Amino acid sequence: MKKSIKRIGVLTGGGDCPGLNAVIRAVVKTAIRRYDLEVVGISDGFYGLVNDIMKPLTEDDVAGIVHRGGTILGTTNRDNPFRYAVEKDGQLVFEDRSEQCMAIMERRGIDALIMIGGDGSLNIAYNFHKKGVPVVGVPKTIDNDLSATDVTFGFDSAITTATSALDKLHTTAESHHRIMILEVMGRYAGWIALHSGVAGGADVILIPEIPYDMDQVANHIRARAQKGRKFSIVVVAEGAKEIGGEMVVQKMVAQSHDPIRLGGIGNAVGAKLEEMTGMETRVTVLGHVQRGGSPTVYDRVLSTRYGVAAVDAIMSGHYGHMVALRTPFILPVPLTEAIGTSKKVDPEDQLVRTAKAVGISFGN
Amino acid sequence: MKKSIKRIGVLTGGGDCPGLNAVIRAVVKTAIRRYDLEVVGISDGFYGLVNDIMKPLTEDDVAGIVHRGGTILGTTNRDNPFRYAVEKDGQLVFEDRSEQCMAIMERRGIDALIMIGGDGSLNIAYNFHKKGVPVVGVPKTIDNDLSATDVTFGFDSAITTATSALDKLHTTAESHHRIMILEVMGRYAGWIALHSGVAGGADVILIPEIPYDMDQVANHIRARAQKGRKFSIVVVAEGAKEIGGEMVVQKMVAQSHDPIRLGGIGNAVGAKLEEMTGMETRVTVLGHVQRGGSPTVYDRVLSTRYGVAAVDAIMSGHYGHMVALRTPFILPVPLTEAIGTSKKVDPEDQLVRTAKAVGISFGN
Amino acid sequence: MKKSIKRIGVLTGGGDCPGLNAVIRAVVKTAIRRYDLEVVGISDGFYGLVNDIMKPLTEDDVAGIVHRGGTILGTTNRDNPFRYAVEKDGQLVFEDRSEQCMAIMERRGIDALIMIGGDGSLNIAYNFHKKGVPVVGVPKTIDNDLSATDVTFGFDSAITTATSALDKLHTTAESHHRIMILEVMGRYAGWIALHSGVAGGADVILIPEIPYDMDQVANHIRARAQKGRKFSIVVVAEGAKEIGGEMVVQKMVAQSHDPIRLGGIGNAVGAKLEEMTGMETRVTVLGHVQRGGSPTVYDRVLSTRYGVAAVDAIMSGHYGHMVALRTPFILPVPLTEAIGTSKKVDPEDQLVRTAKAVGISFGN
Amino acid sequence: MKKSIKRIGVLTGGGDCPGLNAVIRAVVKTAIRRYDLEVVGISDGFYGLVNDIMKPLTEDDVAGIVHRGGTILGTTNRDNPFRYAVEKDGQLVFEDRSEQCMAIMERRGIDALIMIGGDGSLNIAYNFHKKGVPVVGVPKTIDNDLSATDVTFGFDSAITTATSALDKLHTTAESHHRIMILEVMGRYAGWIALHSGVAGGADVILIPEIPYDMDQVANHIRARAQKGRKFSIVVVAEGAKEIGGEMVVQKMVAQSHDPIRLGGIGNAVGAKLEEMTGMETRVTVLGHVQRGGSPTVYDRVLSTRYGVAAVDAIMSGHYGHMVALRTPFILPVPLTEAIGTSKKVDPEDQLVRTAKAVGISFGN
Repeated sequence: MKKSIKRIGVLTGGGDCPGLNAVIRAVVKTAIRRYDLEVVGISDGFYGLVNDIMKPLTEDDVAGIVHRGGTILGTTNRDNPFRYAVEKDGQLVFEDRSEQCMAIMERRGIDALIMIGGDGSLNIAYNFHKKGVPVVGVPKTIDNDLSATDVTFGFDSAITTATSALDKLHTTAESHHRIMILEVMGRYAGWIALHSGVAGGADVILIPEIPYDMDQVANHIRARAQKGRKFSIVVVAEGAKEIGGEMVVQKMVAQSHDPIRLGGIGNAVGAKLEEMTGMETRVTVLGHVQRGGSPTVYDRVLSTRYGVAAVDAIMSGHYGHMVALRTPFILPVPLTEAIGTSKKVDPEDQLVRTAKAVGISFGN
Repeated sequence: MKKSIKRIGVLTGGGDCPGLNAVIRAVVKTAIRRYDLEVVGISDGFYGLVNDIMKPLTEDDVAGIVHRGGTILGTTNRDNPFRYAVEKDGQLVFEDRSEQCMAIMERRGIDALIMIGGDGSLNIAYNFHKKGVPVVGVPKTIDNDLSATDVTFGFDSAITTATSALDKLHTTAESHHRIMILEVMGRYAGWIALHSGVAGGADVILIPEIPYDMDQVANHIRARAQKGRKFSIVVVAEGAKEIGGEMVVQKMVAQSHDPIRLGGIGNAVGAKLEEMTGMETRVTVLGHVQRGGSPTVYDRVLSTRYGVAAVDAIMSGHYGHMVALRTPFILPVPLTEAIGTSKKVDPEDQLVRTAKAVGISFGN
Repeated sequence: MKKSIKRIGVLTGGGDCPGLNAVIRAVVKTAIRRYDLEVVGISDGFYGLVNDIMKPLTEDDVAGIVHRGGTILGTTNRDNPFRYAVEKDGQLVFEDRSEQCMAIMERRGIDALIMIGGDGSLNIAYNFHKKGVPVVGVPKTIDNDLSATDVTFGFDSAITTATSALDKLHTTAESHHRIMILEVMGRYAGWIALHSGVAGGADVILIPEIPYDMDQVANHIRARAQKGRKFSIVVVAEGAKEIGGEMVVQKMVAQSHDPIRLGGIGNAVGAKLEEMTGMETRVTVLGHVQRGGSPTVYDRVLSTRYGVAAVDAIMSGHYGHMVALRTPFILPVPLTEAIGTSKKVDPEDQLVRTAKAVGISFGN
Repeated sequence: MKKSIKRIGVLTGGGDCPGLNAVIRAVVKTAIRRYDLEVVGISDGFYGLVNDIMKPLTEDDVAGIVHRGGTILGTTNRDNPFRYAVEKDGQLVFEDRSEQCMAIMERRGIDALIMIGGDGSLNIAYNFHKKGVPVVGVPKTIDNDLSATDVTFGFDSAITTATSALDKLHTTAESHHRIMILEVMGRYAGWIALHSGVAGGADVILIPEIPYDMDQVANHIRARAQKGRKFSIVVVAEGAKEIGGEMVVQKMVAQSHDPIRLGGIGNAVGAKLEEMTGMETRVTVLGHVQRGGSPTVYDRVLSTRYGVAAVDAIMSGHYGHMVALRTPFILPVPLTEAIGTSKKVDPEDQLVRTAKAVGISFGN
């Protein structure tokens, strides 16, 4: 017999994303007002679930946060209850702590869980579901690379930040006849580069899904110069790579002192282009600025809808589901649809075709 | 036999809207780059078509305008070639000037037309289509009340402006324990009020589709105050009306000296609420600020897609069609789908339900 | 002998203003870190002082608020401890509650007070000073009409909001050949209208200090139209008035049902201009949007400097002083310099001359 | 006898800066409206002067540009008429082309010049002045490091862009317990880092004028973590350096393949801090984004005032002067005051003291 739901827990996992607070707020308000539930906020993602760090969430706790970036619950990128890293005898070993989590839920009287997270977190959600925990997912990936939903929240905010940078680079590029490079997020999918490049009037967009030929890129820029356009704007996704090449990883790794790792693909492309074209080149690496800040209106509405729908899904028994935008509706879809697949940019995508029509080169 | 297309015209009709320039730019670039066409820009909407005010548009003319508000072509709200107002013997008479327009097109060598406009303009487009003019429409309404497309461009920009105002009112309302009223656009459809209200954390949303009861509104605000929330934010669409009441028209009419007409629904609701609740109330009337400014990233991408698709539609012979967003595609759909119907907010719409779930009252 | 300072109180009085939280944060951090003091936050301005509503403020309480609008302490416009409104036998009588406040301070162990407020609040601060209370003021007026300091905080934020509205009106005015009116704050001083008008490319600026002639305004707009500029932007301060005329008060007064009062000066000027020029005219009334929102960078820096300097002033015994910007320094100046005088726009001010040089009419 | 002024030239030199267009617009409008002059716009800075690339500027040319970034005239960083690089026999030689410039001015009938530029351009202006050319300077440096004026235009816009990035990093840092590094402009002066750091709630600010000790920086961050603040925000000026260390130059030099040069000081500090604290660290390099975009309201007003004052200075015979802000006035001051001196951050500056009071470490 299905247990009646009295108290639900909510956690945020993985990298942060504008709109998380709007989801949390909508979950709390809907649970309390529509269903008369209690809500428990779990701190720092799955770390808090394993370690029982949680506290009740009231309407007061979520007042005035719809427009705030970040997550009031905190989040971590690393912790997986099914494979939880513990130091033992000076060694890192991985243990399954999922039963421990379920015991904590039992003791806390948490009847169901809403897990807001990306591919990794939704996988964990699915594994809990398989063990019988009533769980509903809310998909979160700033990269918009989830095939199960039309759009993920946070994406519109990220491309807005990136486009705002492009707008600024435009004015200075025009005045100076320079090549301006903007490196944006996107290790495996180029959606951010593609959308912000189209919106920001870029001349070249380089994304992981369409390996580029450096000669093509340089030719495109030279051709522009010959037509009197003496500046060019290049948007590069982190994971962009040359035809036949590999990803240039920008990473801070303390134990590595390899200096090349300090400069990512943006710097690499910039140095190369300056060499090939003889034009002054400047590089901006936006980094985590793209994850921060107040969510756009689009993201606030979407996040609020997700939050309400997640509670509805719990109460209508859609366990093992996540909420998804299937325009114009938000619907519960099985978690299995979301896990393990990712939505890459198809080189024949209508938006790629659109970009090419307005003169943008993908270097291919 | 179908005439081959060498030169196309483009015009913008009706109220302006963020994204018009992005559409024009995409039309010009696609026509020239992809199809090697010439493009003629027609000034001030149908006025320019009737009066033959037009000039060639090159790629240079549309460089750097993707992010600019307004329309480089100009627009008017009033002129209809099929019912064109002319003064004759001191009297205003209406004449059919459509043949004149077609003769001008003939003389100018314009083989097809792209008409960017709202319900009125698309109607005119359809009438030209019926007379055999190769015409493609691009739907434009800031109110998002067009059923033939998932979203119209400009809408996201308008709700972003309205939400930004709500964010600002929030901080001052909180500090002062006041009722803050924001009057937004929407004479017949409440989409702007609904979206910005959800995104901006409003407490009350009043829209034309859901007539309100002033007592309900006041009760909601009083109930908030009793729970310690001493301020409330009310979003009112221009066309909102009381149950059984009529629209309060905010209009500047020189010939009318009726003072009440100077204050619209926002002021009316504000005065009433102050009287009923005894709380200080302040009113902001955003007006045309909502039509202006740089389009959001969402609108820039959508507008660019529409512009490219409109030229594709011309070249693929989709005359009498308009381009529409049917997520995730932009497709040509018959103009007849768009004309004469408008997409109102259904009181049972999922977003209305979402709004209620997070505690927003519609005064009903 | 001067008593040593162990604990200070801080309150915000009068209308709210972007930057208040930044001042509070700087006061708390400086008091705790630099001087090892305790800080007590007094709620809702002088109302909280009279009624003993206060609580300790720690560094945690002020973390992350430098960029937030409003005031975490709350504020009221009305309460004056020296003339405190009390209902007695159904009648409103005014009593001196200043001794009561001093007794509360004594009991709470509050050795000195920082009062952040406008002309009214600084007057109260001065009266407390005369009674021997160690008090330091921080000047706050969004209108920038305080002669004792070069700039007040909040002003830059207010003109930024107003200018942003002008930017948006510009694009829509251009497209439509209209007159756009923006009514901004400023009952007695026109600084907001003047600065935002210059920054926003206005064509006409109407301010209280320079009464206007409606014919001059209309002539200026007609002259523009004759030169091919078919739109005009008019910024009107709330308190602007015709030569020989009186202020048109925009006010929500429950007890008054006079409909004309619902429309302020913006609507009045708009109606008149439409009548005189025959051009379509649209009006935006920004209202309290100008007081809200995140403070600009300029205001955050200025507010932080004021907050630090206020504590320094307490600790250096500058009682009866307020902190003021005397570029490039923040200095304590006697409260008497600030009280009862206000900085109006001189019709010969360099910025008025600048505005005229770039073609702006003041209607005189 | 002083020649009467009929036609003036205007050029922009050096790196671009928000507000340049507002200055140009004010120059053109003032010259035409107030003094009935003609204005010639010189393209691409001194390059255009040497090579006679110029055209008349009308009011139409400068309409609607007050809010636009960049410069409609174009600019270069490199060309000096007194030491002009020319290729001769395959070798780069430097020639004095100043007489050539004067001949061009003579032939064009340009009676006086307004030169908008930084230290380098003002030096050139001064050299022309010494040769008898009637010249007035408008100071431009985004770094605000000019001692002759209270503030330079563009600075407020640059710190606004940098602070906006800090606001976004804040929300993501909080959610993740990370160190976030923001590298901002400032090779020789730390004003941008200092102002944006104070406004953006930074925890550490590293600037060229105050060499830092890496241990101090790490200690400050560890001390925060111990008090429960598990994230820290570090603002680093390009030219910041360790005590006893040298500047880490971020530069794109085609001929150099030294990989370390691809990563600037931000990356270097980030790698080191991650190593020392064991905390995850992320780096953003804003680069030229800081030079771009629409000027803030503050900068638009200041730029407009400079432009008007520059023409006034010409007409009042203040040759060899530049216009400067001496709050509250704009005044002409001798160019010699501006040349060769730069305003560095004094480690005892009131704003440094303010920053320290609110808990910011400079690593010293």
